[in-house]
Amino acid sequence: MALRSDWSTRACPIARGLDVLGDPWVMLILREVVQGVHRYDQLRESLGAADNVLSDRLRRLVDEGVLTRRPYRSGNRRRSEYLLTDAGADALPVLHALLRWGNRHTPAPKGPMRILHRDCGAEARSADRCDTCGVVLTVENVAWVKPSQSGGPVVLEGARG
Amino acid sequence: MALRSDWSTRACPIARGLDVLGDPWVMLILREVVQGVHRYDQLRESLGAADNVLSDRLRRLVDEGVLTRRPYRSGNRRRSEYLLTDAGADALPVLHALLRWGNRHTPAPKGPMRILHRDCGAEARSADRCDTCGVVLTVENVAWVKPSQSGGPVVLEGARG
Repeated sequence: MALRSDWSTRACPIARGLDVLGDPWVMLILREVVQGVHRYDQLRESLGAADNVLSDRLRRLVDEGVLTRRPYRSGNRRRSEYLLTDAGADALPVLHALLRWGNRHTPAPKGPMRILHRDCGAEARSADRCDTCGVVLTVENVAWVKPSQSGGPVVLEGARG
Repeated sequence: MALRSDWSTRACPIARGLDVLGDPWVMLILREVVQGVHRYDQLRESLGAADNVLSDRLRRLVDEGVLTRRPYRSGNRRRSEYLLTDAGADALPVLHALLRWGNRHTPAPKGPMRILHRDCGAEARSADRCDTCGVVLTVENVAWVKPSQSGGPVVLEGARG
């Protein structure tokens, strides 16, 4: 947590949550990982992040128990991929709350992004519950319908770490 | 947005939301303002923020339409207070999603903080809807029950900017 305050021991859970999740790169990494982007090189490419930024945030997320790191081999090289833990999967409502705020309060020339509850097929108008059938939204039952993509809804991935 | 990337024109509303709200000080300022802490000096005291940090974030939030600035006089001095706009009030689910994640995934020696839906009196187990009666949670109908406070629930304040 260099270069920033430490809120990890505050009585307020908002402050403690921000201590882990209150960084734009952290949330963008989680946005990618829930969509199945696990490998370092893929994350770097899809996020356009500098190596020092990306590796710092990934190390921090592993330290905090939000992601787990798993080594794999690519030819002769050792690489890393990153999987959601349950705590990481549980950050979905934070992503969704930001998504809904961004839809409503920032210019969206290509239209809004939508949250689909796959069990009942309804669009969810909540960060964490299907407002049609009442089920809690999780990475296991959500797909995202993106404005910029013609390939259909992106089915999210469950925790595997 | 100096010293960080500009995500304001991305197709993804999560990225655009983070461009405004993806900063821990920004969220902590909003946490205070929804609880009725409006004045610069009060914000500085309750957040323990340095003047340059606080004034930078407040200016950014006014520029982004999340807060409005209103001058007032204190004796002979001109001071500023900051009020929520509708866009600012609409960030409540982001605060709540962080609160719920912090309750679940960080150590809480003093216990969790709770979200109370004042209309029906139930504790809400959602960032944005009362899961007991189905009503959308807003700053007008929510109180927070804090672990560190014996003075009873803190009734949030509506948008006035």
